[in-house]
Amino acid sequence: MNLSVRHIAEQVHCEWVGEGDRIITGIAPLETAGPNQITFLTNPRLAKFLDQSQAGCIIVSKKVAQGRAGTFLVSGNPYYTFALVSQLFHPLARPRPGISDQAVIEENVSIAEACCIYPFVYISSGTHIGPGVTIFPHVFIGRDVTIGQDTYIYANVTIRENVRIGQRVIIHSGTVVGSDGYGFATEAGAHYKIPQIGNVIIEDEVELGAGVTIDRGTLGSTVIGRGTKFDNQVHIAHNVTIGEHSLLVAQVGIAGSTHIGKHVTIAGKSGVSGHLTVGDNASIAAATAVIKSVKPGAIVSGILPAREIHKAHRSIAALFRLPHFITKLTRLEKILRAKGILELDDRLGSDTDDLSSESE
Amino acid sequence: MNLSVRHIAEQVHCEWVGEGDRIITGIAPLETAGPNQITFLTNPRLAKFLDQSQAGCIIVSKKVAQGRAGTFLVSGNPYYTFALVSQLFHPLARPRPGISDQAVIEENVSIAEACCIYPFVYISSGTHIGPGVTIFPHVFIGRDVTIGQDTYIYANVTIRENVRIGQRVIIHSGTVVGSDGYGFATEAGAHYKIPQIGNVIIEDEVELGAGVTIDRGTLGSTVIGRGTKFDNQVHIAHNVTIGEHSLLVAQVGIAGSTHIGKHVTIAGKSGVSGHLTVGDNASIAAATAVIKSVKPGAIVSGILPAREIHKAHRSIAALFRLPHFITKLTRLEKILRAKGILELDDRLGSDTDDLSSESE
Amino acid sequence: MNLSVRHIAEQVHCEWVGEGDRIITGIAPLETAGPNQITFLTNPRLAKFLDQSQAGCIIVSKKVAQGRAGTFLVSGNPYYTFALVSQLFHPLARPRPGISDQAVIEENVSIAEACCIYPFVYISSGTHIGPGVTIFPHVFIGRDVTIGQDTYIYANVTIRENVRIGQRVIIHSGTVVGSDGYGFATEAGAHYKIPQIGNVIIEDEVELGAGVTIDRGTLGSTVIGRGTKFDNQVHIAHNVTIGEHSLLVAQVGIAGSTHIGKHVTIAGKSGVSGHLTVGDNASIAAATAVIKSVKPGAIVSGILPAREIHKAHRSIAALFRLPHFITKLTRLEKILRAKGILELDDRLGSDTDDLSSESE
Repeated sequence: MNLSVRHIAEQVHCEWVGEGDRIITGIAPLETAGPNQITFLTNPRLAKFLDQSQAGCIIVSKKVAQGRAGTFLVSGNPYYTFALVSQLFHPLARPRPGISDQAVIEENVSIAEACCIYPFVYISSGTHIGPGVTIFPHVFIGRDVTIGQDTYIYANVTIRENVRIGQRVIIHSGTVVGSDGYGFATEAGAHYKIPQIGNVIIEDEVELGAGVTIDRGTLGSTVIGRGTKFDNQVHIAHNVTIGEHSLLVAQVGIAGSTHIGKHVTIAGKSGVSGHLTVGDNASIAAATAVIKSVKPGAIVSGILPAREIHKAHRSIAALFRLPHFITKLTRLEKILRAKGILELDDRLGSDTDDLSSESE
Repeated sequence: MNLSVRHIAEQVHCEWVGEGDRIITGIAPLETAGPNQITFLTNPRLAKFLDQSQAGCIIVSKKVAQGRAGTFLVSGNPYYTFALVSQLFHPLARPRPGISDQAVIEENVSIAEACCIYPFVYISSGTHIGPGVTIFPHVFIGRDVTIGQDTYIYANVTIRENVRIGQRVIIHSGTVVGSDGYGFATEAGAHYKIPQIGNVIIEDEVELGAGVTIDRGTLGSTVIGRGTKFDNQVHIAHNVTIGEHSLLVAQVGIAGSTHIGKHVTIAGKSGVSGHLTVGDNASIAAATAVIKSVKPGAIVSGILPAREIHKAHRSIAALFRLPHFITKLTRLEKILRAKGILELDDRLGSDTDDLSSESE
Repeated sequence: MNLSVRHIAEQVHCEWVGEGDRIITGIAPLETAGPNQITFLTNPRLAKFLDQSQAGCIIVSKKVAQGRAGTFLVSGNPYYTFALVSQLFHPLARPRPGISDQAVIEENVSIAEACCIYPFVYISSGTHIGPGVTIFPHVFIGRDVTIGQDTYIYANVTIRENVRIGQRVIIHSGTVVGSDGYGFATEAGAHYKIPQIGNVIIEDEVELGAGVTIDRGTLGSTVIGRGTKFDNQVHIAHNVTIGEHSLLVAQVGIAGSTHIGKHVTIAGKSGVSGHLTVGDNASIAAATAVIKSVKPGAIVSGILPAREIHKAHRSIAALFRLPHFITKLTRLEKILRAKGILELDDRLGSDTDDLSSESE
């Protein structure tokens, strides 16, 4: 692909300076980009490296571009512009449309124009597939599923019955959408299955990583909001709802009936208990266990970071003796006050204050 | 499906009061159930909402039903009765029996009557499949597997050689049963595979969630006991045994050769180290790391709950200075005693007592 | 398989004592091995059990064999020798070579001699498969993949485009190699995909467990070094590199662009943040969150072990009050010094020392 800097700038709606006719053939990192490649710089502190770069064009902020010689795309958000430029050079690979005669399509299935259905795909009855959808081999689609326009499903994905998937959704391999929620009633020590008869709704522009599992609602729906992106091995239990444009990083798990707001970030390996609410714009740090609701905009953490093993063991051993030492310090203070050694003015800090500040 | 209240009560073996002839067509939550729907109430504190409900029939305890007008199923365990009623209206969907000619069945395979084998299923030689088994597309079954009556295997499941699966087992999509255990001998820094020649035994009425992995034994068997239920993304290492009627919630991992008792609950994201025993009826809280054996009936936790990030960081930083402060407090006490400021009667608490109470 | 002790010793390059002609037909654990079985003993403290064993041959160290009657293989590393003997009796099962006509092979694919390609395998154009490769049903292989000699791929695996897999690699079921890395640029609250156009390189003798996900590099490669072994449900993000002969146990996750050295061990459920370095020969304990780089040879831990739930809750509650109590103790010391009750010689320990010792 040969595109001029001018053409690229038009396509991604930003300004350019320098050689508009320079031909760009691809993207590369700043360190290695050559005279026909485009790259980007987001960290202004790295601007000093710009002069050494051989890149044909660099996407930078207005501030970085100012008074500097060279060919630039000038953007208010260089990383975003880089995403668009990169998509220009590397659009999602759409295979030639067609429905393989080695796919099995049950009766009463509608498949719109320009779809690519690979061999070994199985599509159950009552399913409607919008135009431009790509479905790779070994995908199973259950009864009465709907899949929106231009959605892209990689190999070895399972979509169970009644799931509704929006437009421009991307689902990576090994992922399961619509498996039964984990619901049992216990009687005399044995567990009896509560049939999981709800469904899953995946809204437009969602991306699901590889090895993700999303359970169907017990009665209602499990919902993944528009534009939300999941990394690999995320687990979503029944009746969870997730708002728009949230980010769930790898190996996150969300327990049943929890509501996650929009623009929420949950970093890798974190978990959220059931029946909670995580407010809009909240952030949860990595490896964190959330066991009470999180307010909108809050940033929470519960990470215990790795230390040299003996130090870590000593600290953790001390932790389990901590209630005892707090008691000891409190009694010591009391005794010293009783003896007049500590006087009223000798404030050590107020437990009450501390506890109340902790109480939120 | 149209069932009278009387008929439902007979089917699920419980009493009814009110209109026995009322026709019920389905289930719904308490808030939305209409005059032809059945619902349930387990929390007596919510009994006040009963009078507002439009539900045709409500499953309640004897205590709640007493002296109240309406149509009720009266149960000693309303949630259990709801499970049975829900199963009545929503039995596991059994597709029409038949063996697809687009499945590949190796020689020397026996498949009993009333099975449904979908296209793209692969069944290896020496395998025996009991009556009424359903196997969805893209399931691979290795050599010499046995699968019991009425077992139900969703799409994209892998069952490796010599695995034995009981009756009425449900296995969700993406799950792998019988993968090699993780066993290597190290020589001169390189790792040499110990062949994993044992198998996996899944007893009757087990349910395995989506994306579960269960490794085969190195020599003997990995065993999942009767009636035990796994949520999604659970990992079971080689030679683990799990007793009957246990619950393993999502993203739990059990390391090699550990024995989990019966009626054990392990909440989401928890892990148990290798070569341990978790006794019958024990409970392990969510996000907990178990590194020593757990006694029968014990309830253990190791969760560090999320806090506002700066508070969390301050507390964790303090944790790593804690051994120092314990030393400091201990010395302070010693000095004050040496100086006669603290006397024998001024007890701050006994370290020895505390440590011994911790020692279990 | 009937092999004499002498023959086995020759095959695994170690010495034997006792009956060289004794016929061995298989392996078994020490407790149950019979007169035609071989077993091993690694723990010298268990040597007392040797005399009770019925085993036909036991693999032991020189020290254990000395002066003891019986038939032994004598090895400097009995567990390693056991691995080799076990591989002798249980080599990887190579099915009869052949390319199923129920596999779909796109044009421009090369498959070397002695491969076994099962039904329902899909291989995309531009792919090269070396000799002796086994590929089970429901494996998808994308465009321009290379797979080295004798590599073994179990059912339901997905290998995306441009992935390079070395020789003698084993990939277990449900695993996904080459899924898109998790990369988005955010503009006005919405997330725009950064195309992931790099690839994954799996070097020789790597083994990947079941349900593993390895993302392709954004631009460059994600690399798994020679001889490294992954357990199940491991997640590797884009542009991670892992050195040779490392061990990643189940449910480990490594975030983007992190470099793991060689001979590193990462125990189960641990996670490593992005853009870090874990040095050669480092060990990370189970359930540990690594948020800064780890030096070569270091052993780190961040595990909070399970305790009886009320004790655990009390300790954790105390942890969040700890900064307050440290302040209190510090003020108490200051006041007692000001009053002359503590004198210069009354050292409680030095904060400065402690903090500096913590600073590494």
